Amino acid sequence: MFQVNDNYQKLPGSYLFSTIGKKVNAYAQANPDRQIIRLGIGDVTQPLAPAIIQALHRAVDEMGNAETFRGYAPDLGYEFLRSAIVENDYRARGCEIATDEIFVSDGAKSDSGNIQEIFSLDNRIAVCDPVYPVYVDSNVMAGRTGTYDAQKEMWSDVIYMPCTMENGFVPEFPKETPDVIYLCLPNNPTGTTITKEQLQSWVDYANKAGAVIIYDAAYEAYISEDHVAHSIYECEGAKTCAIELKSFSKNAGFTGVRLGYTVVPKELKCGEVSLNAMWARRHGTKFNGAPYIVQRAGEAVYSAEGKAQLKEQVAYYMRNAAAIREGLEDAGYTVFGGVNAPYIWLKTPKGMTSWEFFDYLLEQANVVGTPGSGFGPSGEGYFRLTAFGSYENTVAALERIRKL
Amino acid sequence: MFQVNDNYQKLPGSYLFSTIGKKVNAYAQANPDRQIIRLGIGDVTQPLAPAIIQALHRAVDEMGNAETFRGYAPDLGYEFLRSAIVENDYRARGCEIATDEIFVSDGAKSDSGNIQEIFSLDNRIAVCDPVYPVYVDSNVMAGRTGTYDAQKEMWSDVIYMPCTMENGFVPEFPKETPDVIYLCLPNNPTGTTITKEQLQSWVDYANKAGAVIIYDAAYEAYISEDHVAHSIYECEGAKTCAIELKSFSKNAGFTGVRLGYTVVPKELKCGEVSLNAMWARRHGTKFNGAPYIVQRAGEAVYSAEGKAQLKEQVAYYMRNAAAIREGLEDAGYTVFGGVNAPYIWLKTPKGMTSWEFFDYLLEQANVVGTPGSGFGPSGEGYFRLTAFGSYENTVAALERIRKL
Repeated sequence: MFQVNDNYQKLPGSYLFSTIGKKVNAYAQANPDRQIIRLGIGDVTQPLAPAIIQALHRAVDEMGNAETFRGYAPDLGYEFLRSAIVENDYRARGCEIATDEIFVSDGAKSDSGNIQEIFSLDNRIAVCDPVYPVYVDSNVMAGRTGTYDAQKEMWSDVIYMPCTMENGFVPEFPKETPDVIYLCLPNNPTGTTITKEQLQSWVDYANKAGAVIIYDAAYEAYISEDHVAHSIYECEGAKTCAIELKSFSKNAGFTGVRLGYTVVPKELKCGEVSLNAMWARRHGTKFNGAPYIVQRAGEAVYSAEGKAQLKEQVAYYMRNAAAIREGLEDAGYTVFGGVNAPYIWLKTPKGMTSWEFFDYLLEQANVVGTPGSGFGPSGEGYFRLTAFGSYENTVAALERIRKL
Repeated sequence: MFQVNDNYQKLPGSYLFSTIGKKVNAYAQANPDRQIIRLGIGDVTQPLAPAIIQALHRAVDEMGNAETFRGYAPDLGYEFLRSAIVENDYRARGCEIATDEIFVSDGAKSDSGNIQEIFSLDNRIAVCDPVYPVYVDSNVMAGRTGTYDAQKEMWSDVIYMPCTMENGFVPEFPKETPDVIYLCLPNNPTGTTITKEQLQSWVDYANKAGAVIIYDAAYEAYISEDHVAHSIYECEGAKTCAIELKSFSKNAGFTGVRLGYTVVPKELKCGEVSLNAMWARRHGTKFNGAPYIVQRAGEAVYSAEGKAQLKEQVAYYMRNAAAIREGLEDAGYTVFGGVNAPYIWLKTPKGMTSWEFFDYLLEQANVVGTPGSGFGPSGEGYFRLTAFGSYENTVAALERIRKL
């Protein structure tokens, strides 16, 4: 008789966004005259840039013609895209990354869930708290996290690194030594980040401890400050300890297009075993490449027109971020993030829990955000608003909050 | 100090297609005047059908417009595509499958590699021999296959079900009881299949043994005989024991477009645990949906124009299959497959090994095929040719083989 992977049964329900959905729907039905503004989910709203639309149309036409039709893509991704990535995301920043260290995928979510597969089940992981839930959940499914304490909302074998206003949202080196360290910087959900110097100290720590850093740079395009690194490979020694995940979702609006990539340097080894070779084997066995047309869209992100158009798109969202930040500060809130990331993280007022503030904001201002406690226990007492709405809605939402 | 997943190191090198590539390149360089015809890899060559191209262009335009732009897709896939699948692939064949039993993905290769994750590491898998290598390799990576015998090319904990001319390529119930049974029907690489009645006996066997069948129906569109099932759910009782994988690669030429789906019936349970819920959780945690534009292309596969155009495309390839079959038979070869699948499986002549015949065919006829031994030990002494070339090339290749 077959048996299932018991680790799945250990996972607590994933209720955050479904609970939000239910509460919003119930409120909307009871109050059909109210116009609800959603600044909750981290999904983009601006259409794809013209340069990308043109590239997609061109690639579609190629697929309809026998001479230019493309079947199976190369495992690692097309050379044209990997070269553009190497040139623009690395060489231009002084990082020497080779094209065969780039693995093109269907998105950073898949990569961040799958990357744990190449590590031993005995390895101990460390995560920032609060953070994107996929890192922990994918390790739960693999059986790497021990037992769950429902009251603390913590796993016995996961090392949590609290990031709160008390430590300026900078993760501290944990007491126990981790084997695999997940860093999402700029961070989702807090919208905060650390300096290049602080990141260098994490690289040094990992190299000394023999740990691997999984560096999720999904929000890199939103960095506005000079002392913040765009890639972990800007730090000395990162190639012997770090894997970097990149997404096209937030810099180019590809949440529904699906494209990402992972960098696994050839210097990253466990004894004689190359992690680059392992990830290549995983890619070749369980994945069949990103769509040709989508890879051409990715290439267009790095064209002169694409870059100019996407710079405007990022600026559009960051104008929203500034409006939220300033609007909340004017209204007396304590606010973080929003400078190097499209997320604003606010301290809930008057000691409200994250969910109490959610209800308050929904009912009093008809604005939807995300309770911070949904991202980890240290998110309790915080609340996330995103800059991905339209400017008009963002301004209107802030107007309402200011009037509370 | 971090450690890697040791199971990866147990995998023997994956040399089949790279060795073919090297041999072909060496021959081509030494004989620049010879025109080589490739009937080796299972990749399509016909361009996407006009109905699909139109759907792609329409969807691209939607993505360029703020009113019709789509961000994150629903986890399971868009309702429009899942409804079309249910209606055309199931209801039209008398199978009652619900839309929430369909999980749209980026292709059957990903699904066939990932599906093992929801089973216990103690489970014993059974595979046909020869077969598509991903089933075994993905279980090796998970640690489910024991030790490798390099001489026999077999894993100690895998149950092999030889499919050879002696048993008419029909897998027999194994002596040891498996927990998870992989069936790829019509089969890659043999191009053979079994009757609906024989498939029913496998469903009965699985239900009695408490085993799950992973049914890979990637080549379903090529079935031409009435007594062959298009879906395992045509068999009584399949919903309590079978997961079905489907691809758009071969019926619609999507090898470079990437789309597939998996059916996990709600009746499929281990005690109280629903495999449908488990797969939904995996999908929601480690995957972020197939691209919107690609899902619209998938929808067009089921439109009246799409169906008519793809029927022609399949007929085009099957004309090649018939030409290969008949040409080889005329030339005195013993030939299988090619009736319900785009693959022709031939017995190598004069006791040649698969690789000896590969060299012979490359050097004497300048035709490239795939050595059967690359798909499993029982493939030794066989050879695969595919019908996915152009008709002109296929006919020319057969002309050359006939003259040998």
